[in-house]
Order: sequence, then C-alpha cells, then structure tokens
Amino acid sequence: MALDASALEEGAAFTPRFSADGLITCVTVDQASGDVLMVAHMNARALDLTLETGVVHYWSRSRGALWRKGDTSGQVQSLKELRVDCDQDAVLALVSVGGDGGACHTGRRSCFYRRIEASAGGVALIPVSG
Amino acid sequence: MALDASALEEGAAFTPRFSADGLITCVTVDQASGDVLMVAHMNARALDLTLETGVVHYWSRSRGALWRKGDTSGQVQSLKELRVDCDQDAVLALVSVGGDGGACHTGRRSCFYRRIEASAGGVALIPVSG
Repeated sequence: MALDASALEEGAAFTPRFSADGLITCVTVDQASGDVLMVAHMNARALDLTLETGVVHYWSRSRGALWRKGDTSGQVQSLKELRVDCDQDAVLALVSVGGDGGACHTGRRSCFYRRIEASAGGVALIPVSG
Repeated sequence: MALDASALEEGAAFTPRFSADGLITCVTVDQASGDVLMVAHMNARALDLTLETGVVHYWSRSRGALWRKGDTSGQVQSLKELRVDCDQDAVLALVSVGGDGGACHTGRRSCFYRRIEASAGGVALIPVSG
C-alpha cells in the first residue's frame, strides 16, 4: 500500500484509476481565461482518444455513449494540456474552445453559472454575473 | 423530463443530484490564483456543513468518513463562493486556503502537479512547473 501510494503520487507512470463503472472524472478549464468550464467523465476509450487526437472526448453517462465534445455544437475542445491528480482518479484538461467559445449546452460559456446562496430562508441559486 | 431539465438548469431551487453512493463531485479552486486545487466528493452532510459553517467539508471515500479539510494539515478551506453546474451533479468551491496555502497531502499546492505527456514511446507523467 505504501509502495502503491508512492508509485501513484510520485511515479512517472500514468495508471488512471477508473471507478467501478469504468469512469474517471475530468475537470475542463479554458486555458485562456482559467475558468472552469465543466465537469464530465471519461472512460478508457475517451481518455485514449483525447490523448491520441488532441480533441477532448468524454463518456456521456446520460446517453451511454462516447462523446466527442462539439460534434453537434461546434464547441470542440482542443487539448492544450492534460494533468492528473495525486491519486490518479481525476484529470484536468486545459483546452481552447472552438465555435462560440462556450461549453454548456444551455448556451452559457461555463456550466457553473449559478452560485448557491444560503440565507435564513433556505438555499437558493443566484446567477453568476459575467 | 423537459420540465425536470428546465427546473434543474434554470430554476432557483438547489436540488443536488447525488450519485447512487450519495456523493456529489466538488472541484475546488483557489479564488485568489484561480488554480484548480483538488477534486473531491461531498455527501449531503458535508455539503450542508460547508454551507452552514463556511468551511469546506468533504466525504473521504478512502476513509469512509466526514472530512473537514485542514483539521490535521491546517489547510482549512474558507468558502468564498459555491457554484453548481447545469444539471446539479457537481459543485465548484471557490476558497481561500489557510495554513501554508496548499491543498495536496503530498505537499504541493495543487493535486494536479503532473501533466500527461503522450509520445511515440507511450505516456508518461511530467512535473508541472510552478
């Protein structure tokens, strides 16, 4: 276990730790602005295709299908850098975005367009400006 | 389904969609630098405590326990803003970090300290500078 942790955290080998359903979490950031655009998942095939083609691929859990982001929206994500975290169960994709530069299917640039506001009356979602 | 999607994406109600194991993904960003520090998970209790106390709590999957980040390391994360994504299955925590300002148990500021480099010889991990 100590050896495993050391290899995972300090080694040069990329050994992604997929979850029981075969997925790894991907956080996608616009390299130019630094904004977090979205969180999605990759299976081994999506990860391989992302590295091979330089275009970000995901696994759509809702559709149960490989998903080359931008195929229908034009919001193709060109991979600038892919990072992995300490225990290799999440990746961070730094991208430049084609089309209108957005990532969210609702039309916003980022999927994180609402903040959670706690108040005495409960919790509500408030649009984030900008 | 159309109504559900509309409420999820455009409504003011915070209705987090926990996975089958009761967790929601949290991406944590240093508000000052904009750097992605880590990806972790929250259960409903960790999410509630984060909103109530203003200090970020997670659920540690490896330890099977509620985890108030910083309790042992001093790297307490003060919540500046919590956002939710379009389909409410991920949150984005903007934080300021106490202690030495880091987030990773390996001593680095960010857990994403290696990039994945694909080459003819395969894939290797290379330390990210800075």
